[in-house]
Amino acid sequence: MFSPVYTERVLDPAYHNWKTWYAVAAVAVHKAHLLGLVERGIIPRETGGLIAGAIEGMEADFSYPDSIPPSVEDLYFVYERELGHRIGPENAAFLHTARSRNDMDNTIFRMALRQTMLDFTEASLGVLDSLMTRAKAGTTELTILYTHGQPANVSTMGHYLSAFAGELANDLSDFMAALDVVNLSTMGACAITGTGFPLDRTRVASLLGFPSFVVNTYEAISSTHWLTRPAAALEELLQDITRLMADMSHKASCEVGLLTFPDTLVQISSIMPQKRNPVILEHIRIQAGLAAGTCLSIRNLCRNAAYQDINEASDAPVTELLGAFRLATSAMALLRDVLENVDGNDSMVRSMAATFGVTTTELADTMVRETGIGFRSAHEISSRYVRSGNDVAELRQAFQEHAGKPLPFDDNRLATILEPGYFVEIRTLAGGPAEAGMQPVFASLDERAGALRSKQALISENLESARIALGQAWREILQ
Amino acid sequence: MFSPVYTERVLDPAYHNWKTWYAVAAVAVHKAHLLGLVERGIIPRETGGLIAGAIEGMEADFSYPDSIPPSVEDLYFVYERELGHRIGPENAAFLHTARSRNDMDNTIFRMALRQTMLDFTEASLGVLDSLMTRAKAGTTELTILYTHGQPANVSTMGHYLSAFAGELANDLSDFMAALDVVNLSTMGACAITGTGFPLDRTRVASLLGFPSFVVNTYEAISSTHWLTRPAAALEELLQDITRLMADMSHKASCEVGLLTFPDTLVQISSIMPQKRNPVILEHIRIQAGLAAGTCLSIRNLCRNAAYQDINEASDAPVTELLGAFRLATSAMALLRDVLENVDGNDSMVRSMAATFGVTTTELADTMVRETGIGFRSAHEISSRYVRSGNDVAELRQAFQEHAGKPLPFDDNRLATILEPGYFVEIRTLAGGPAEAGMQPVFASLDERAGALRSKQALISENLESARIALGQAWREILQ
Amino acid sequence: MFSPVYTERVLDPAYHNWKTWYAVAAVAVHKAHLLGLVERGIIPRETGGLIAGAIEGMEADFSYPDSIPPSVEDLYFVYERELGHRIGPENAAFLHTARSRNDMDNTIFRMALRQTMLDFTEASLGVLDSLMTRAKAGTTELTILYTHGQPANVSTMGHYLSAFAGELANDLSDFMAALDVVNLSTMGACAITGTGFPLDRTRVASLLGFPSFVVNTYEAISSTHWLTRPAAALEELLQDITRLMADMSHKASCEVGLLTFPDTLVQISSIMPQKRNPVILEHIRIQAGLAAGTCLSIRNLCRNAAYQDINEASDAPVTELLGAFRLATSAMALLRDVLENVDGNDSMVRSMAATFGVTTTELADTMVRETGIGFRSAHEISSRYVRSGNDVAELRQAFQEHAGKPLPFDDNRLATILEPGYFVEIRTLAGGPAEAGMQPVFASLDERAGALRSKQALISENLESARIALGQAWREILQ
Amino acid sequence: MFSPVYTERVLDPAYHNWKTWYAVAAVAVHKAHLLGLVERGIIPRETGGLIAGAIEGMEADFSYPDSIPPSVEDLYFVYERELGHRIGPENAAFLHTARSRNDMDNTIFRMALRQTMLDFTEASLGVLDSLMTRAKAGTTELTILYTHGQPANVSTMGHYLSAFAGELANDLSDFMAALDVVNLSTMGACAITGTGFPLDRTRVASLLGFPSFVVNTYEAISSTHWLTRPAAALEELLQDITRLMADMSHKASCEVGLLTFPDTLVQISSIMPQKRNPVILEHIRIQAGLAAGTCLSIRNLCRNAAYQDINEASDAPVTELLGAFRLATSAMALLRDVLENVDGNDSMVRSMAATFGVTTTELADTMVRETGIGFRSAHEISSRYVRSGNDVAELRQAFQEHAGKPLPFDDNRLATILEPGYFVEIRTLAGGPAEAGMQPVFASLDERAGALRSKQALISENLESARIALGQAWREILQ
Repeated sequence: MFSPVYTERVLDPAYHNWKTWYAVAAVAVHKAHLLGLVERGIIPRETGGLIAGAIEGMEADFSYPDSIPPSVEDLYFVYERELGHRIGPENAAFLHTARSRNDMDNTIFRMALRQTMLDFTEASLGVLDSLMTRAKAGTTELTILYTHGQPANVSTMGHYLSAFAGELANDLSDFMAALDVVNLSTMGACAITGTGFPLDRTRVASLLGFPSFVVNTYEAISSTHWLTRPAAALEELLQDITRLMADMSHKASCEVGLLTFPDTLVQISSIMPQKRNPVILEHIRIQAGLAAGTCLSIRNLCRNAAYQDINEASDAPVTELLGAFRLATSAMALLRDVLENVDGNDSMVRSMAATFGVTTTELADTMVRETGIGFRSAHEISSRYVRSGNDVAELRQAFQEHAGKPLPFDDNRLATILEPGYFVEIRTLAGGPAEAGMQPVFASLDERAGALRSKQALISENLESARIALGQAWREILQ
Repeated sequence: MFSPVYTERVLDPAYHNWKTWYAVAAVAVHKAHLLGLVERGIIPRETGGLIAGAIEGMEADFSYPDSIPPSVEDLYFVYERELGHRIGPENAAFLHTARSRNDMDNTIFRMALRQTMLDFTEASLGVLDSLMTRAKAGTTELTILYTHGQPANVSTMGHYLSAFAGELANDLSDFMAALDVVNLSTMGACAITGTGFPLDRTRVASLLGFPSFVVNTYEAISSTHWLTRPAAALEELLQDITRLMADMSHKASCEVGLLTFPDTLVQISSIMPQKRNPVILEHIRIQAGLAAGTCLSIRNLCRNAAYQDINEASDAPVTELLGAFRLATSAMALLRDVLENVDGNDSMVRSMAATFGVTTTELADTMVRETGIGFRSAHEISSRYVRSGNDVAELRQAFQEHAGKPLPFDDNRLATILEPGYFVEIRTLAGGPAEAGMQPVFASLDERAGALRSKQALISENLESARIALGQAWREILQ
Repeated sequence: MFSPVYTERVLDPAYHNWKTWYAVAAVAVHKAHLLGLVERGIIPRETGGLIAGAIEGMEADFSYPDSIPPSVEDLYFVYERELGHRIGPENAAFLHTARSRNDMDNTIFRMALRQTMLDFTEASLGVLDSLMTRAKAGTTELTILYTHGQPANVSTMGHYLSAFAGELANDLSDFMAALDVVNLSTMGACAITGTGFPLDRTRVASLLGFPSFVVNTYEAISSTHWLTRPAAALEELLQDITRLMADMSHKASCEVGLLTFPDTLVQISSIMPQKRNPVILEHIRIQAGLAAGTCLSIRNLCRNAAYQDINEASDAPVTELLGAFRLATSAMALLRDVLENVDGNDSMVRSMAATFGVTTTELADTMVRETGIGFRSAHEISSRYVRSGNDVAELRQAFQEHAGKPLPFDDNRLATILEPGYFVEIRTLAGGPAEAGMQPVFASLDERAGALRSKQALISENLESARIALGQAWREILQ
Repeated sequence: MFSPVYTERVLDPAYHNWKTWYAVAAVAVHKAHLLGLVERGIIPRETGGLIAGAIEGMEADFSYPDSIPPSVEDLYFVYERELGHRIGPENAAFLHTARSRNDMDNTIFRMALRQTMLDFTEASLGVLDSLMTRAKAGTTELTILYTHGQPANVSTMGHYLSAFAGELANDLSDFMAALDVVNLSTMGACAITGTGFPLDRTRVASLLGFPSFVVNTYEAISSTHWLTRPAAALEELLQDITRLMADMSHKASCEVGLLTFPDTLVQISSIMPQKRNPVILEHIRIQAGLAAGTCLSIRNLCRNAAYQDINEASDAPVTELLGAFRLATSAMALLRDVLENVDGNDSMVRSMAATFGVTTTELADTMVRETGIGFRSAHEISSRYVRSGNDVAELRQAFQEHAGKPLPFDDNRLATILEPGYFVEIRTLAGGPAEAGMQPVFASLDERAGALRSKQALISENLESARIALGQAWREILQ
């Protein structure tokens, strides 16, 4: 008998975690392991059939008690005890041949986490879609981009949002690599050294949808990479989102006004109609920040914990990580709502471009390209123009002084050079905001998003095939 | 003129960082960019030659002043000013055509970080080699492995160390993926939107040893992935090392004694000769922990910092990350020293196996396999044997009671079954400690280590080719 | 109307947090604020009575809907709307005169957190009691204490546990200082600049049990110290617990065996009766680690968030912090269970003392004190004794060589000097393990524990007095 | 002989840390301990005098070798060896009677950290002074304060900056409490259990400027509070600074323009004269963020490290923490520069107040106070006024409709009510921006700043008295 405190504070919370998050995957593991035992002749077919029938029966009519029963250690023992009630404890115990709670639990946690990660990937690919769709629709929608909090260059919503799409694609590529680390069976590792029974590790892994298994049995049980790698990848992605939110909040602030939101995303004030506070950006930042905090917590947890089987890799931390994914999924849903509803503000772009002289860089560049003067002179000429309050006469005078000849641009040409649209159109270099510059950006994004979608689809199909194969083999053993 | 405090606290420390860590890469970037400008006809060949000559001259005889000169913002302006002294400011300024400190600095930081990461990879692959060599030599060297701090199973040093080799290979694979994120040029991104000048981004990237460049120019300048991804990958690896140290420290403690160290790695006490304290394990843990802490610091730094060009991606944080790599490299060197000198202790394994009954699991398994009794009975029989203080008569009695027949193993057979070596030999399942079990472990490690080495070599060769190509093109422009 | 995604992902989760954790404190704030408005003549007494009656009615028969109703922003608006149904919206709205959700919510969060912190303090003071009681009972119960993982000195359980009691007392003193930061009203700060209405901030604070209020109204709303200081203090305490768990786990491991546990705290193995795994220590470490991780998450959350009213100081983060306190309270309950049940192992102490020579330090010291030889010689003599396998003849020989005279201790005296109990008894220096050494330790602990208890009692009594005063004033306004 | 790798990677870096940061405090500890030994008669006066003479001689003419000499473990052994060269090893060794490197090193680290913390406190109190001076000068200097990134209320620079002064005072109060934890001697704790020699712990503590000592000798050596508490307190303060920087950056951005900076703090652009980028705010944020990251690193370092003497409490981590303090001191110096040079912008306040209607809250409040209508009506009336584009006729019409009587304010009165200055003047509630409201704010700040200064002075005077007392006693023993 455990102490009441231990039961209340450790065993019962674990039991509830298991009921809520892991009981379904546990049954799949029981089925796959049982099939493996029978197929390899480790237990007789009849015993296997008997156990299978009881498992099937329990799926039909068994519910776990509300709290952990006294003198039982965990949910699995409740399960085995019930099996024992149905077919005798000696028969029931054969199910646990050639496995241990170590490999069983670990595989179950990986299955639960895998599904959660797939759901999150789905949500994230949705955000990536929204970003790319919005970016493609915004290739001529002007905006102003900032450096160090100051307006720096004219550009487009397409350029801006596709930049972040690139970050997200990068994050998701890392995330999928972390999913590969999770998506490995550990069945057959038993306690830590495997077993003398002739299991087929590949077959059991395959029935559970795993493309492979962690080979070294000690590594299989001792590793925490399946927890820390997803945590790290998720954290990285969420940190990026906090950065986007900081930038969008600034652009959406009432003084700047480069981004606008529909009423459905704005908390308004009953008294100040002009106060349109897209507080959704703040909530995305907070949800992302809290979920990132849990990821960090998981990663710090194993510091200096012995490289052995440790309970850091058990239900309490895993369940916290699942919670972080739920919160992160919420942040992604909110972000998608934002991306599908945010608008630019062309007139504000033009007014700011004029006020803050953000296109005069191009005036200098054009003088260098077309008049033969050097960079330093060109910048000094432009600078005098801006300081004069955009006085064209001053500009012409300055050019004459530096170049010893008149500026070869008439007023129309000058207006064109300083026009925000021109600033964009001339930036045709790969990755710049002009249409030609954006082509390789979109091509790269399309390719990367496609690869992510394919990988996601492959894993999902693999799971579905495994589900079918397991169902079929299960029906056979039941006969 | 900047305020004296700003100069002392920001500009001068940055200047020193640049002198120490980035000035060499900066010259390579000047050369590649200049070649690009000339090749694309953006500046005349003669101007290019003039600048190239001055750069060459500065490499021969210029040294940076000890402190940042007054009224200069950074090291680059010191460089350009000196160029100006040599060929006139107007000519010197042409070098900065179609670039900005944004793309220039970013590319330089990536080059410095890339080299540091390659050095670290080299050190880590050395540790991986040591682990694998030591593991392969230890396939029959018995040890005891633990779960939750308790002796659990007999196994081998080969099984144990190859498990951690698997972790390290996994970490390094992630680390190399992070290196791919770093190993991209950003030249041509200019401030944030590229330029109207017809640069060749591929060519400049190639001259600097980058296989490619960050396409979207805003992403190129705003992203901090090149800082945070290496930090995350390094942190993950270091956390694993703290776990190994915790486990090895326990195994090396005087009460356990499963691992032994030569005198060169042990701080002895002048008074207690039996006190052989492999405090090196503690120092590895601390160096790993401190370096991991800096990685975390870098990753937290960008929380809620606007998705723009920010100074978080500049010299102060980059230099801290370089420092973390130096410390991590130190930890790896110490770890390699440990791995090449640690020994097992066969007699301690045998004594602990007997004392703590760590092989009786196998007795139960063998009864199940060979006598037809069930799992539950087999465990109860073994349990009675252990509780009796390993009394064989009690074991036979218990078997008779449960099975209704005598135990079909004579005393010799029993001794064999309980022998630590047998426990290992029978675990032939893939990933188990027996020779057959270890084959796929080593095969997988060999393949992964080979892939890592190939990738490392490819990047290094790419850098060397680029160095040669840049040198050749440079000699041509100098003529 | 808010977007459905915003409602589902932000408003409804917040509404549920409010219902579960903050609704009770909210009513107290409504009452105190209403009393304040009436007492200062800001609203007429009759209006006040009308509102009070409706509040009283709602306490009797109102329940919040399961989900947030459409077009309502938060729980308070549901509350005010129901008030409006009862007494008309115009009357109901008077309750919100001279306050804002900013100061109201902030004060409510502080009240909820204050109560949670008091509960945690109670649990922690219980642990401190257990530590001190156990320590006082163990002043002659020998144990061995370690440095760097190696047995170093003989000492007592009293010395060992009182050392950690000192740490905990220190942590709790810091924790109580953090509680002082929380325990301040912010009512009257309104949005951020207070109000022109003549509120009595002291009176309202007092009715809610606060000894005072945050004076500067902008600081009152913008500060996050009330979240981050408790998080920091809790984290510090929990980190200490992970250190104690690491040390106790080592001492409890089967090879060391200096600490023993009753069966109720040990997970046993069905097959290895000697395997007595006090896995409770591991669970304490994990719960402490996870709760510490949430504290860190909260502290990182505000990095670079503007010094303004931000939603980081609202329900989602506060609720996570409350969760961390629940987990930390669980860890404290488990720790108390451990402390009340752990035992030392005198025979193991004596055997280890002999095996590892942990008392020979005292032999050297005694020679210095009593024979006039120097430190260095004394250590070399002792060292030869230990290296010889505790051969007394060798010791005498060594002394003769160094000192030029025979060792003036007969064999009995030598045995006494090397006896573990003597090692303790002679260490009478303040803070050492001898009885005289422990007196100032216990005196200091008693004083500090007393001060903590007094402070805890004072705050609790203050809350109770406030509850009574509020109830009385409330009954008067209801009349 | 240690392995070359261990020497290069552990011993030599430690030796350099000691030379740079701890060698001076070490000598003070040698002196105080020697005086203690002589005063208590533990070693003869003549021996004491001999050692003292040699110490004095070494101060005159000894320099440590550049690198750690072979076969020496640390700087202390180099020191003792040199002492031995001067007075014979046997005599030299007496200095180490009744102490251990454990208590000696720990006390030395505390002394170095104490001095660093005092220097930081000095810098921080300077910032607090600047904040308060600037705030007091700005009690009628209007500004606009924000919530959730939106302009919310008119207030004053005095109100704004004194709010942050309150945060800083709070942080410093916690910081001084952490300094109390550091400012305790551990001499006499020896290895971990004290000693049988009759030391006077109080006397030695006093000679080194400590008001007291850690009583329990095991706690003295095992505790890491002296590292983690300062780290936590510093981190909290620095996080606050990142929040202020985020807010000030927004207020200083060119679109908002509520704060202005002199040219000496602004990085200008050669081409955009209007671009006045107070990038100093970004550098403060980064330096604060990096220093906070090191603090976090230190605090994470001890997770799961055994509650024993551990090397986490030795030179490498302590030196990293000293580095964090240097960086934090730099951030404080920059912040002070900002605070002493930042200006408000009255015309911008007035223009924004009008544009964004930030004073209409007061219009509604005044109607409630003076016309008898309810809150809800008042807000609806004001709201119609704002929506109409501040059309007074519409306002009068709305009032008539709601109240059934004409608005009793003429146009002059209306202008007064809506005037930004009036908004401030009427907020006389304690803590509000009006002069009366600010009185208790400044009174509280003056008191708290005074208490901090007194405490700082007390500790410094204590150190100075100790220095004098040590010098005097030292001169006596030298005679």
